[in-house]
Amino acid sequence: MNEFDVIERLSGLLPPAPPEVLVPIGDDCAVLRLGGGTWAAASDMLVSGRHFKGWADPADVGYKAVAVNVSDVAAMGGTPRFVLVSGAAPDPETALGVFEGVAEACGKFGVYPLGGDTTSADALTVDVAILGEIEASPVLRSGARIGDLLAVTGELGASVAGLLALEEGMDGFERLKARHLRPRPRVEAGRAAAWLGVGAMIDLSDGLASDVRHVCERSGVGCRVDLDLLPVSDDTRELAASLGRDPGVLAATGGEDYELLVSAPEQVLRTLSETVEVPVTVVGEVTRSDMDFRRGEDVVEDLSGWDHFE
Amino acid sequence: MNEFDVIERLSGLLPPAPPEVLVPIGDDCAVLRLGGGTWAAASDMLVSGRHFKGWADPADVGYKAVAVNVSDVAAMGGTPRFVLVSGAAPDPETALGVFEGVAEACGKFGVYPLGGDTTSADALTVDVAILGEIEASPVLRSGARIGDLLAVTGELGASVAGLLALEEGMDGFERLKARHLRPRPRVEAGRAAAWLGVGAMIDLSDGLASDVRHVCERSGVGCRVDLDLLPVSDDTRELAASLGRDPGVLAATGGEDYELLVSAPEQVLRTLSETVEVPVTVVGEVTRSDMDFRRGEDVVEDLSGWDHFE
Repeated sequence: MNEFDVIERLSGLLPPAPPEVLVPIGDDCAVLRLGGGTWAAASDMLVSGRHFKGWADPADVGYKAVAVNVSDVAAMGGTPRFVLVSGAAPDPETALGVFEGVAEACGKFGVYPLGGDTTSADALTVDVAILGEIEASPVLRSGARIGDLLAVTGELGASVAGLLALEEGMDGFERLKARHLRPRPRVEAGRAAAWLGVGAMIDLSDGLASDVRHVCERSGVGCRVDLDLLPVSDDTRELAASLGRDPGVLAATGGEDYELLVSAPEQVLRTLSETVEVPVTVVGEVTRSDMDFRRGEDVVEDLSGWDHFE
Repeated sequence: MNEFDVIERLSGLLPPAPPEVLVPIGDDCAVLRLGGGTWAAASDMLVSGRHFKGWADPADVGYKAVAVNVSDVAAMGGTPRFVLVSGAAPDPETALGVFEGVAEACGKFGVYPLGGDTTSADALTVDVAILGEIEASPVLRSGARIGDLLAVTGELGASVAGLLALEEGMDGFERLKARHLRPRPRVEAGRAAAWLGVGAMIDLSDGLASDVRHVCERSGVGCRVDLDLLPVSDDTRELAASLGRDPGVLAATGGEDYELLVSAPEQVLRTLSETVEVPVTVVGEVTRSDMDFRRGEDVVEDLSGWDHFE
């Protein structure tokens, strides 16, 4: 049984959704109609030993816990507004460090902390629940259409490269380490994409190879992605080379980039690219069926992403 | 530094509250004005080894994680509506067990699960964030007035008695064990109290001695509580006797009863008592200053409640 089996089994336990629920469990966020507004809701938990180790200080963990939730809201085209933060820490000083990082991220992303819970535990654990406001229509994973192009914001592989540098205790590569410890969710790009009416959107938390599969399965389509097109920075390539890793594979499978994957017609992507500050790079296209990862003309097999119980 | 010091220090890190925030951090829930409605938001985390041990099965933990959040909404006078559930478990089967308990509690309390997160960790950890709808005015901790009486719903001490029975591996006492494992938040009583305009309300999670202090500090008042008046059931007394514990002290300090403590004029409490199914018992009164715990005429010293970092 893996994470996705658990989710599958859980779906059978759900009661009927009340009328306020526009989008139930299964997308980056659930979407609710509350009063006159549309709200996105999600939560994400970070656990010591699983999502981070001693190289992350408590403030980094608190910051990232907020940032990854902000990214979920960005992937619906929403604006992050409120968070609840629960933290379990081995001592009060660590808890305070976490909440300093939380407060810093809240300031950075314009999110207000409504409260939460603090408790003690051996393993530092932070769970953030977020509410975001959606002004345009929410962008779902299910809206990819045959003929759409697939594009990503920013760069891929920097986060996993930073993780490798941290794990290996390598000097330098500070930019990559920061990308891993303090992700930059793409709120502006997500909002713009929603206003432009892109077909589908997801944030790249599990890795492109895994996340594009979620989009394709939900949309009932296939895809072709060219690893040679993935936006990979020079320092990521340098790090990969120094460890004998393939930068394209790292970028496709590394996860935790918290960039956005967008499916839309070419013209919409061009407008998006002209509208937002972050680079938007076409990496493939939506096809009738099958997940086809290539490097130029060569098929790349066995790309897989992140399974939380693997 | 204890839990309350952490909260104190954190308050200094908070940005200014946006206009939707009617009640910020510091009460049972934060309260938000969203669209035309008023919403209560809170989160509570349960961690293996801290909040439960091997005597709790995963479904109990999932159930309780929802129930204690429902209790926070009840304490504002709200109706629980939506939850987000994040769970960290050592294996997928345990995670599934947790979510079965979550689903059962959601059905019981009429709450819809919007989603959440699942991850792996050594220690089973469940965090639930809740949104509840408030139709009357939210009832805060700060509304206790000199001359109000203090009353509690239901019974006190049953949960800690059940915990002791579980910890000691005692046969029998099934009702008490169930009160610990599967709390019964007082949603109906909380709503009725809000409609009747009671002064202050809090749910009894830390223990009466600690929770009444929160009300008094927020309200700028004192209290006198008579331990002889606390509603303690026969089986709780029997369990206490068999372990040589004082049932009144257990009831005042045990915590996790998830009953409501209400401050209101006598006539309002009488109406509340006639309106709701659960018993409502006067246990003391609001005074000008000082926390005064008595047994009849005798002062009881050194009652303290729960500190999550103690």
